[in-house]
Order: sequence, then C-alpha cells, then structure tokens
Amino acid sequence: MKTLVTLVLAVITALPAAARAQSTGLAGTWELALFRFNEPTYNRVKFEVSGESVTGKSRNLEIAGTLRGQILEFEAKNPNGRVMGKFKGTLSGNEMFGEGDASGTPVRWTARRAAARPSSPRTHTFEPKEFHRYFSSAIPPVLRIAPGDTVRTWGVDAGGTDSRGTRRSLGGNPQTGPFFVEGALPGDTLVVRLTRVRLNRDSAGSGDSVVPTTVGPGYFRNAKRAEDFDSNWKLDRERGVAMLAKPTERLKNLRIPLAPMLGCVAVAPPGRESFRTGNLGSWGGNMDYNQIREGTTLYFPVYHPGALLFVGDGHAAQGDGELTGDALETSMDIEFSVDVIEDQDLGSPRAENDEYVMAIGIAGSMPDAFKRATTEMALWLEREYKLSANESAMLLGFALRYDVAELIDPQVNMVAKIPKSILRQIGK
Amino acid sequence: MKTLVTLVLAVITALPAAARAQSTGLAGTWELALFRFNEPTYNRVKFEVSGESVTGKSRNLEIAGTLRGQILEFEAKNPNGRVMGKFKGTLSGNEMFGEGDASGTPVRWTARRAAARPSSPRTHTFEPKEFHRYFSSAIPPVLRIAPGDTVRTWGVDAGGTDSRGTRRSLGGNPQTGPFFVEGALPGDTLVVRLTRVRLNRDSAGSGDSVVPTTVGPGYFRNAKRAEDFDSNWKLDRERGVAMLAKPTERLKNLRIPLAPMLGCVAVAPPGRESFRTGNLGSWGGNMDYNQIREGTTLYFPVYHPGALLFVGDGHAAQGDGELTGDALETSMDIEFSVDVIEDQDLGSPRAENDEYVMAIGIAGSMPDAFKRATTEMALWLEREYKLSANESAMLLGFALRYDVAELIDPQVNMVAKIPKSILRQIGK
Amino acid sequence: MKTLVTLVLAVITALPAAARAQSTGLAGTWELALFRFNEPTYNRVKFEVSGESVTGKSRNLEIAGTLRGQILEFEAKNPNGRVMGKFKGTLSGNEMFGEGDASGTPVRWTARRAAARPSSPRTHTFEPKEFHRYFSSAIPPVLRIAPGDTVRTWGVDAGGTDSRGTRRSLGGNPQTGPFFVEGALPGDTLVVRLTRVRLNRDSAGSGDSVVPTTVGPGYFRNAKRAEDFDSNWKLDRERGVAMLAKPTERLKNLRIPLAPMLGCVAVAPPGRESFRTGNLGSWGGNMDYNQIREGTTLYFPVYHPGALLFVGDGHAAQGDGELTGDALETSMDIEFSVDVIEDQDLGSPRAENDEYVMAIGIAGSMPDAFKRATTEMALWLEREYKLSANESAMLLGFALRYDVAELIDPQVNMVAKIPKSILRQIGK
Amino acid sequence: MKTLVTLVLAVITALPAAARAQSTGLAGTWELALFRFNEPTYNRVKFEVSGESVTGKSRNLEIAGTLRGQILEFEAKNPNGRVMGKFKGTLSGNEMFGEGDASGTPVRWTARRAAARPSSPRTHTFEPKEFHRYFSSAIPPVLRIAPGDTVRTWGVDAGGTDSRGTRRSLGGNPQTGPFFVEGALPGDTLVVRLTRVRLNRDSAGSGDSVVPTTVGPGYFRNAKRAEDFDSNWKLDRERGVAMLAKPTERLKNLRIPLAPMLGCVAVAPPGRESFRTGNLGSWGGNMDYNQIREGTTLYFPVYHPGALLFVGDGHAAQGDGELTGDALETSMDIEFSVDVIEDQDLGSPRAENDEYVMAIGIAGSMPDAFKRATTEMALWLEREYKLSANESAMLLGFALRYDVAELIDPQVNMVAKIPKSILRQIGK
Repeated sequence: MKTLVTLVLAVITALPAAARAQSTGLAGTWELALFRFNEPTYNRVKFEVSGESVTGKSRNLEIAGTLRGQILEFEAKNPNGRVMGKFKGTLSGNEMFGEGDASGTPVRWTARRAAARPSSPRTHTFEPKEFHRYFSSAIPPVLRIAPGDTVRTWGVDAGGTDSRGTRRSLGGNPQTGPFFVEGALPGDTLVVRLTRVRLNRDSAGSGDSVVPTTVGPGYFRNAKRAEDFDSNWKLDRERGVAMLAKPTERLKNLRIPLAPMLGCVAVAPPGRESFRTGNLGSWGGNMDYNQIREGTTLYFPVYHPGALLFVGDGHAAQGDGELTGDALETSMDIEFSVDVIEDQDLGSPRAENDEYVMAIGIAGSMPDAFKRATTEMALWLEREYKLSANESAMLLGFALRYDVAELIDPQVNMVAKIPKSILRQIGK
Repeated sequence: MKTLVTLVLAVITALPAAARAQSTGLAGTWELALFRFNEPTYNRVKFEVSGESVTGKSRNLEIAGTLRGQILEFEAKNPNGRVMGKFKGTLSGNEMFGEGDASGTPVRWTARRAAARPSSPRTHTFEPKEFHRYFSSAIPPVLRIAPGDTVRTWGVDAGGTDSRGTRRSLGGNPQTGPFFVEGALPGDTLVVRLTRVRLNRDSAGSGDSVVPTTVGPGYFRNAKRAEDFDSNWKLDRERGVAMLAKPTERLKNLRIPLAPMLGCVAVAPPGRESFRTGNLGSWGGNMDYNQIREGTTLYFPVYHPGALLFVGDGHAAQGDGELTGDALETSMDIEFSVDVIEDQDLGSPRAENDEYVMAIGIAGSMPDAFKRATTEMALWLEREYKLSANESAMLLGFALRYDVAELIDPQVNMVAKIPKSILRQIGK
Repeated sequence: MKTLVTLVLAVITALPAAARAQSTGLAGTWELALFRFNEPTYNRVKFEVSGESVTGKSRNLEIAGTLRGQILEFEAKNPNGRVMGKFKGTLSGNEMFGEGDASGTPVRWTARRAAARPSSPRTHTFEPKEFHRYFSSAIPPVLRIAPGDTVRTWGVDAGGTDSRGTRRSLGGNPQTGPFFVEGALPGDTLVVRLTRVRLNRDSAGSGDSVVPTTVGPGYFRNAKRAEDFDSNWKLDRERGVAMLAKPTERLKNLRIPLAPMLGCVAVAPPGRESFRTGNLGSWGGNMDYNQIREGTTLYFPVYHPGALLFVGDGHAAQGDGELTGDALETSMDIEFSVDVIEDQDLGSPRAENDEYVMAIGIAGSMPDAFKRATTEMALWLEREYKLSANESAMLLGFALRYDVAELIDPQVNMVAKIPKSILRQIGK
Repeated sequence: MKTLVTLVLAVITALPAAARAQSTGLAGTWELALFRFNEPTYNRVKFEVSGESVTGKSRNLEIAGTLRGQILEFEAKNPNGRVMGKFKGTLSGNEMFGEGDASGTPVRWTARRAAARPSSPRTHTFEPKEFHRYFSSAIPPVLRIAPGDTVRTWGVDAGGTDSRGTRRSLGGNPQTGPFFVEGALPGDTLVVRLTRVRLNRDSAGSGDSVVPTTVGPGYFRNAKRAEDFDSNWKLDRERGVAMLAKPTERLKNLRIPLAPMLGCVAVAPPGRESFRTGNLGSWGGNMDYNQIREGTTLYFPVYHPGALLFVGDGHAAQGDGELTGDALETSMDIEFSVDVIEDQDLGSPRAENDEYVMAIGIAGSMPDAFKRATTEMALWLEREYKLSANESAMLLGFALRYDVAELIDPQVNMVAKIPKSILRQIGK
C-alpha cells in the first residue's frame, strides 16, 4: 500500500513550486486523496480557519474541526447532519497527510494545496516525441497546463505517420499527450476548445471497402470487387477537396469537400482501466464524429487529477458512420485551449458549436447509444434550463436532430443535438 | 377458386372503356394474372402478331406461339431457352382467359389489355369521404388515375379530425385513398411527387412526454412531471411557427418552425397482408420521416395492379425520431402527381429532393434498419452508376449522411442519403 | 355502416339454435358489439331483471336501467360512478340491437345471447380441405366448437404437402382452421391443450444452410459449400430418429432425435390486420418454439369473438433459433382441446408443460423480445402469486431460464420459463 | 525503449533455473520476443543445429541460418518462400538477444529457452493475500505453474469478503491470481479444468431487484416495492439449498438449489489493455455463465507469455441472464488444473462438460453475442470435424441449444452448445 500512496503523492505534488499558491496556512483550497484498500478517491476541500477552529466544504459535505499547531482534526457531515468521516493529519507546507475513518472503513489520506489559476493564460507549443496507443492514466503527462491555457501541437495519422511521411509509431490511432490540466479533479468537467484543426500534408489513406457489419448479410455475396483498387487520396488544401490519388475511370472527377476533424479526443478513463486508442467511452476517445472540428468545444467528465487529455486521429473528411472503417486518415495540426468547471459531473461527453448543443451517446449497440444520447440531452435540458420532463419533451419532440457518428468501433456513437436558436427562446 | 378469379377479372377490367386502347387484336401490351392454388401473380406481356404466328416478351421471358381465330397458344422460355410455361386461351375483345402449366403446376389465367397512357396528364380533385385505418389491397380504390396525372386532395389528422375540427374517423392515422394508378403492376416502381403539402388549419396536438423506449430505463424514475401540462399547439401559418396553445411559463417564447410533412405515404402491401396505418414496411406506410414534404419525390415497389396509393398523417413539424410518439399532428392539403417505371423492382422505398437521394431503411430494430438503408444505397449506386463495390464504398465512406426518421413505431426507420452534388461528379 | 353491422350480427348469430341457452328474457349473459365509426368492440354483459328494473355487470362497469316491454334502456358506470355510456335498444328473442352514446360518441350496438356451455365436452374430427396462408379474422371459421371440446385434425407441411405427398397449397406454413370457440370474446384468454402432435409420414425437408443473419458477416466469405448437398430427411418413427435421406460420408451416422412440434398456433390478430403465416405476434403465429409439442398447453389473448384458432407448420425436430430457416418440415396429426378464461387479458402468449411455466416474448429484435418475455413473466408472477417486485426478482434472479425459440422470422421469439417446482414452494 | 525490453526480458527469464531445460546449445524450443516501436510480439521457435548450419520452424515460417560461435544469423520465410525477416543475435546460455528487420521495419529481439514440461504434474496450494480488481497483464503473477499442474486456492466474494466474513478488498469481483502458466505463448490455447468449485461459508448476498435494462420501460412505473426487503441468503450446504435469511411471508418456503459456479475466469487481455473485473471479452472475465462450475473445462486464447490466469466471483446459484445484477454472491474454494495447446488460436472462449461443447459469444449486444457464438460453433465444427458449411448447418439447425449467460454486464454473453452425443455420431 505504501508504494501507491507515495506514488500518488508524488504525482499530485510534482507541480513546480512557482505555480503553487503562496498561502502557507491551512486556509484555502486543497486536493485531497483518500485511500481505501489502496485505491484513491479525490476531493476538493475548501478550508477556513478562525483561531484553532476549522470549517470547510467539500461538495455537499460540511467540514468542522480544529488545527492545533500542525495537527488537523476534522469531521465531514452530509446535508442530513450525518457524520460521513473523521480525519486526523499533519500540515506540512503545501502538503498534508493523515489517517481516518470513512463510513466505518479505515483510510489513509494525503492532500496538496490546489494550484492557483495563473493571472493570464499562456500558450504552449508542444512538440510530441512519443505517441500513445492506449487511453490510460498510467501514461505520465507530457505537459502540465492551467485552465485558460492554449496548446499548439500536432498529431500523427491513425497509422502513426507524421506530416513528413515518417513513421513514428505503430498504428491504431496513436495519440499526442496526455496533458495534465491543473486543478481538474474527478467530479469536474474538462472543457476543450478546438481552436485550430488543420491539415498539414497533402495525402490521406482510407479503407477500400465498407465494413461488413454495416451492410446486410447478403451484400458481399454478390459484390463486384475492383481489381487493384487504390484508396490513397490526394488532399488539395487550396481548393478544399480530396480526390483519389489513382482514381478509377468512374471516379476520376470525384471531389470530396475537405472537412478536417479529430477522430480522438479523450481524458484518461477511470481508475486503472486502459483501452486501445480505437476504443471510446464516457471518457471520450475514438468518437469518430465528423462535427469534432475547428470551432467545436468539448466537455468531458474528469476521472483523474489533471484529467489527462489526449488528442489524435486526424481525418481530412468522414461520412456519417465511418463506413469504410477509417476516414481520410491524415496527420493534423492541432491547437486547443482548456478550462475546468468545478463540481459539474457529466455522465458522458458533450459538445457545442455555433449552431448546436450536442449530447454524445456511446454504448455497445445503436439502440443503447441512441437512448444514452437522448437521455443525456433530456437531463441536461432539465438541469440547465430548469424544465419539467414535459417541457423538455417538447424540445426533444420537435427540435432534436440525431447524427450517426460511427458504427464500426468497439462501441457505437450516436449524437443528439438541439439548435441553440431554440435554446435561446427558453433562456436560463 | 372460381370466385377469386372472377373477382380479379372484375377488378382489372373495371376501367371505363373509353380509357382503353382501341386496338382490337392481340398485338400490344396485356396485363396477365396467373393463378396457382387460387393465388394470383401478375405479368406484363407484349405480343406481336404476324399471320398466325405470335411472338412476345414478358420481363426476361421470350414468348412464341400461335393465334388461330380467337384461340391463343404460347410457350414462355427463359434466357437459357428453358420452357417455363405453356398456355392456351381465348381472346375476347380486350380480355383473354385460359389455362396452362407453369413449371409443372396447373394454372388458370386471365388478361386484360393494358390501358393506353392518356395523351395529356389530367388533374383530379378528390374529396375524401371515408378514411382507412389499414394499409390493405382489400380496400376498393376511390379513384383511378393515369401515370402523369395529378391529384388534389386532403387528409384528416392522425386522430381522424379534419380542417374544420370535425371528427371523421377513429384515430391511428386514417388515410386518404387508395388511388389506383393505371398500368402499375407488381415488379414496377410507383413514383409519387409531392407537389403541395400545406397546412389547412391553425391547431395541432402532440404527445406530452417522450416515449419510454427512447430513453434509458432510469429516466422516468426521477423525471419531474408537470401538472396539467397541455400539449395542444397553435399554428401561425403567416409567421411559419408553432407555439404551445397554453404554454408553461418556461416555454412561453418557444417557437418551432413549421415544416409540414406527411407521416404516411404507402402502396398496398403484398398479397392479402393488412397492416394498421401505424405500421410501415417495404410498401412505405407510417414512415414518419421529416423530409417527406412538399418537393420530395417518393419511389415505391408495386405489389398489386394499380399500386393502390394511400396518403395521410399530416405533421406540422417533427423532430428526428418522433420522440413524443406523435408529431405536431394536424390535417393537411395534399397534392401529388404519379408515374410508373416499368420493370424496376425496388426492394424498399426511396426518396429524392433537390439536395439528396435517399434510401429508406425499415426494419425491426435500429441496427437492421441502418444496414438495410446502407445496403439499398450501395446497391442503388452500383446499379445506377455502374460502380464496383470499392467505388461505391468511397461514396458511402466520405459523402453519406444518415437521418434517424422514427424509432417509436412498430418498425424503425433510418435513412441513408447522398448529396446530388457528389452524384453529379460521377455521371451515369 | 349498415353492411358491416349486419355482417357482424350475422356472424355472431350463426350458431345453431340448439346450442343456445333457452332463456327467453333479458336475464343472463350477452355478447354485445358496439360500433363507433363502423368499428366494433365487444363486451360480455350479465343482466339481472327484477320487474322493470335491470341491473348488470360488464367487466368493471356497473349497469342499471329498465326493460319496458321489449325496450331496454341502461347506463354503464365505472367504479368511480362516472357514466361511461347510455344505451337504448330492442330485445328480440336471443338478439338485441340499438343505439347509444359512449363517452360522447354516438354508437350503434347489437347483442346476442351467449351460448351455454355444453353439458359434456365433444370430440370433433375435422378433415381440412383448404389451408390458409394468412392469419386473419377475414377467413370464415371452418368449425364452431365449445370450451372443453376436443378437435382431431391434421396439417400439411410448411410447403403445403400432406401426409400422402400430395401438394394441397402454396407454401409458407399453410394453416388448418380457423376454429371458432364459442364464448371467447376480446379480453378473454383462449386455452389450447395440445393432446396429440404426431408424425404421419416418413419424410421431412429442411434448409441446407444457415440463415445469413445468424452468423457473423465474414462467415460466408470463407464457407466451404458442399456440391449437391441434399437436405431431405428420412423419419424413422419406430426408432424415434431422423437421418439424412442421402447423407454425405461425414454425416452418414447422424441421427437426430425426433421431437415433433407445431411451428404455428395462433388466434386471429386484432381488427382487420392480416399477416402471412410466416409472421408472429401477440396473437401467436409462427412462434417456431421447440417446446410447443404434445403435452404443452398454450394461452392466447383473444381479439375476436370466437378467437379463431389456427394450427399448422409441423416440425419433426428443431434446434434452438431455427438456424436453417426451417426445421425438419413435415405434415402432422394434431389433436387439441380448448377452453376459455373469461376476462383475463394477457398481453402475449404463454405456455405450460409438466416442468415449466413459460412467457413467450415476441418483438422486432432479440433485446426487445428478451425484455418482453422477462417483463411478462415478472408481471405474471406478481399478479398470480401476489408478489412484490422484490419477491418476483428473487425468482427471476435465481430460478429463471431462457430459451431462444427462433431468430429468423419477421419477429424474434425468446422465452422466459420458471420451474413449477419453484412455484409450488410459493403457493397461490 | 531499453526499459521495456529489459523488463520483458526480466519477466520471461524469471523462471527458477531448476525448471529450465538443461540443453546448453541452440537446439530446442525458444520463446522469442520481437520489439517494433517498443511493442512486443511473441513467437515459439524450434531450432535444429547441424555443424554451423541452423534450421527451424515458427508456426508456418521456415527458418534457415548459421550459428558461428555465439553469433546467430537467420532468415524466416513464409510458405511462399518470401523472406519475412532477417535476424542477428548472440546466444548466451538460456538467453539470446539481437536485432533485425521484419517486413522492412527495424526490430530488436530477445529470447529465452522454453521451460521443459515437468516429468510429473504438481499440486500447488496457493493462499491469496491480495485481490485484483482489474484484468491486466500489468499485475505481476503470484505463482508460476506448469502445464498439467493443479492449483488449490480460494476466492473472496464479489464484494471482497472471504469465507470468515473479513473484508479483504474493495468490491467489483476482486480476483485471485494471476497465475503464470509456463510455456503458454500468444497464439496458444490455455486449458483450465475446474476440478473443485465448492462453497466455503453459509451466507450469500444478492441484488434485491431486477436490473432496469432487463425489463420493459413501463415495468418499474407500476412495480410494487416491498419495504425493507432483505436479500441476504442462508446457504444450507448439507441440504444443497439456499433460502432467504430474513424471508418475507410469501417467500418463507423458497429453496433455491445450490449450484456453485465461478462468475469470473480470465486470462490477461491483449497488450496493455486493462479492464475492471466486471468486464468480459475474448479473454474471458466476468462471463457470469451458470455452467462454469466444477467439472467444466474452459479454453482461452493466450495473449501474453504465461497467459496470466485469474479466477474469482463465486456464485452459490444464478439464473439465466443474472437478472438481479448479481447472483448469490459468496466466497469459494477453487481447484483447477491447467494445460496448454500450442498453436491453436481461438477467437473467443470455449467450454466443455460431460454433456455439451460450448462456444461462448461475448459482444456489445444480444444480437452480436448470439452471432458470435453461432459463428464460433460453426467454425469449430468445420475445423475439428472437417465438415462443409452445409454439413455443419445440419448440426446447428437440429441439435444446437443456446444459453443466455448474462445480459447485465458491460458486454453480453450468449452461449451456443451442441450435445457430445451428436458429435460422437460424426467422429473426427
């Protein structure tokens, strides 16, 4: 047990001292890790001190206790006044550690003082060296950034090749990141604004056939395959179109409008879960949704301190469903800014652009993904706009649109979206 | 057996004599009904006569025989030269009847001379008196029209109420029709152009809650219902918006753009199948797709002589999926023209508007409806544009969009659509 | 309107006078058909007469009125005392007819005196002459039987061939029946005991390949087909096994145990719906469940007066799911007895044998069929055994078994079953 | 890169020297790890040496080269004679390491001499101290065992409590293991025989309600919940039944037959994937199938050297589908033996007992799990019994049965099973 506690302590205290708030006492905001059977949960605690008396808040818990010298003792009560935990520990500069009891289970805990938000946002240019084929909290962050900051970086294509045609990784959507966002804790929402998603080379590749699961069982029995069909594409960034590099006679005039997007944006999945970068879930991942593009803002539930943001899998264009199993796969220049909404606990990713608010429904089948998207949208409308179920039903029934994001990854992605023009009529 | 044969003969010969071609011999096009175990199949046969010698064609069958006086004898051979049937009968003006043998089974047959296409299209104004709650070939046609003709009519709302608020039928999408289209035979395609779909009253009704199957199983457990929520709507045809007739405080400014559409367009389903007008299938029906509106052209497989076209279930507006179980239900003025494409055998309905060609996928579940739409689109592209499976995959992968038509009827409806701008690049 | 009313009156009064109760006044049980916009609903009404005063009951409605001479007037009130309808009519022997108002809608009505249950059950031997390829209330009944009666009959195989190898119908599961069961009304349950389901010939046919929708999309790409594979079977009724008639070398010793069953048992579907005999629904139909065999009792919701029972589609044996699209298809000797449970309104078919009580879940997809079966079983346990939802959950969680009945028909059939040995521990 | 290579080398050479084959030269079997972009693949190579000349085999690759002193050089050719790789390295006792080129990509490689199979199987008694809540190859093995060996151990219940009622872990199916099976390499099959699965305490817990996704959306709206329902169970091991510890009046006589089983048996999932122990996949895991019990043999695809076997999640009894979300959860005594089938590459788990051979179909939805199980069974029959697709269809169509294993975990599990009595008629 000691190892993990120490490790986590090391991770959450790895911040350069300069970035830390200078307050030296207990007062202020702390990030507290609570260990039961060696497994951490995280809490943001705001302490106030008056003499030896300590009060505080952590979500819906009220905290009360004492600080005598460096020795802190406190209880946490839920809104019904029930004691949920008793804790004792030692304050040591920007860190604390101690023991306690949570709902009858003995626990250990550590805490670090929350980083102060920088006075002005910074822009980081990040040159990736390694690319990651798993969404996992076990991968050390490559950069620590603050809410409000912007990152300029780039990603290889799904096969691991960069803008100069150099193979940099095995394939399967290798990712750039993860980026550690200061102040993001489990239970928060990470905001990711895609400020720039631009092509950086003139070629893309794609599958040359539809994925068998997207057509009826008899389709392939009679399908007429072309010999030596070449599904490499040329990207004409000036004219904004893609064309087959070596087209067949019938497709020689085919011009697909370029619409650059990111197949993958993710935070690290919960706990020690680790998924291949072809996968997706409530943590985002390989969502393959053609509306995740420059100008789109994404919202993710946070599962780890720092959120651990990944980006990758550039597509020059993609139809609904990603029927060929991959899109026009290419490397991409990526710029994004981040923010954190404290104590807003999303169940699944959301997105937003100028026109729509979108609920992203990810599940093991189309019907379940559809229900997930619909339910998340209904709940969001009811929460954000203080609507009854009947009122939200009117918006769902007469203003909602669906997008089929993708149907060929390990999970299905269906999106429910509602026009902002309608939402403006309601007002918050 | 006699009864049915006689009945069918009566039906297919009920055309006013004036509309019939004047040719008195065998030469020309005939509609032939073949009865095995009392069940008819239909064939279009084109005869040529030279002396006593008769030749002809019926789809891919070659016909050869003799006409001696009024006695006709002929064989039908498939492209491999194999005799598929031998027939003998009597010519009697614009009718024939006889017996024969089809692939070893004894058969009876009747035929009538095909109606000539009128020299110029007509416009019929049809005032409906009865409304039908089943899609069925057992319902006698209300009007016989010719390819090219236009019909001006109207429909009650899903509950059976007309534009003046008079209840005219029980509910469940009562239909106007069926219209018998001369010359349409099983194996053909019926073309229906919706030239006018317009609101004719100022009120609509809708469900007041989402259908339980469209949300997750936990949604309703916590849903906050409004007391006495009123889901009647006012339609402001001048401003082109719908608003709740008695809105709650939160929804008092909600304005849904009017987008009139028909929930139902159908031909009679195969054989003696009869479905409630809430149902849908390869014959169309309650497709509840918000793009079936003025300016849309629909294509249906024909299952009966005359196709037997139904229209109804006007919606003033409808979101994707028809989540409240019904849309803004209202009566509607409807105008359409029809045409017939001979010997084009669609497996399921198609649609077309200025922007898109659409394949309508109807099945028992979302995954099956999605595969159906995708497969029909792939096959259509390959057939119409002479593409290989790899070539069609490029269009599907990078230009296809899906619409979720509806998810709450007995069958699911998912639509695959491809921009005409892309198709123009291919050329036929 | 008159036509239909007259017709229905004719149908429900077609019973031989001898079978009718002899009571000549109003007192007793009547079957009343109520017509709104020409569409009937049916009610069982029990009248009592005291002087000119009339009281009665119809389900949860209380009836009160007067009979003056032959003129009957009455009101029906629901349990809250609200008047649901007012009726006036004329008594004429065993018939009545009149007009009225039901919840504000004008109605016409007819009634006939309910047939008395015969003093002792009869056994009918029925030799079928026609076979029906639709489940539909439009087909005239072939025999009128009473609750408790037994019918001995037989059915052709799915292709229409009888026990002597004579083709009697086109294929697609042609049915024997329909049988009109006296006293069965919509809202009742029809009980069908299969007392004898026996092979009557020595041959069966089957598909020679699995249905494509039952395997993964890649299966057929690599499947090795045998040339000239013959899937005709020989039935050795003495030894109780089926063997291929012309087996391949590898399958020459294959012996499938005979387990005769009926693919189809059905009542007529609601209203004027008509389904091909390959279809299934809440009215039963082509359920293709290998436990519907001699010794099984079936329960169906009744949708029409007389229920209109169909039987057919004999299988000599069938694996779960009916993967080859048909089973060992053969003609069958069939004997069954019937009964009626008044005012028990099942939502879907149920079955029972010595070992299990079964809820038959029919829907458009496996997940929906599974949920339907589970829900019907839970509701049945709670209703029949007066269990709370937590109590029924204990039985579902630890004693329930599922059978995959079939997956290749227009609807999926999944069965939930619970051992009677467990139910006996609960007691009613 | 160095780190991982060294680490892997360390892992695969951690075997006690005593267990190694004593041969000191190159001849014999080696386990070779090939690293591309830092990611290993594993190969079993059998070398023969004749003078300086070296030949060998690795699956379908032919190896030829030279050994001069300790310096080994070789090429690997596929069956078409194409060179798939060129390698050079150094022999150092029971280890080798080197570099090379595989299909144009530079690689590094290490190898260790394969452990010899012990002359007689051993029985290990393993007392677990830690329990793991992830299926992951990142967890160090707790014991190294050889093919043929038996392990006697035990597992905590799904909540982490042992046979004495002591909480040993957080909940979520904490596992015993992983066990490293010498000689198992990716591409092999791990065989696990459950020789003993026995209850070791007198209590179990279960959910008190069905999981909402297993019933229709309206079920819970009307469900009558019992107050303070207690779903703790008493296990009467002598009589072989479970009963509610504090039963309601209605359930006081309910006795569920004990049928102990393991909810979880797994190998480590591929690569660095890590799944919570509630999950399942081609690597097994939380399969929750009530036929995984004493006497059952399981077969798993191997994804890592040593396979890394986990066991846990004892159930005293479980109905089909695990409808309450958990079964009768209890701790369990577990004994199993292992074996390895080299170069047999299963796509998904299989099982076998006295009566049936079973294909375990795991997927994101019921239809996909069903198709997976059916397809795996068809392919297995065709491969093992040398059947054509038509011949396997006869077995699937008339002898196959399905079990609904579970429907409430992150993936669905459906099992296809075929009687051994039928298979014996075919013979291999």
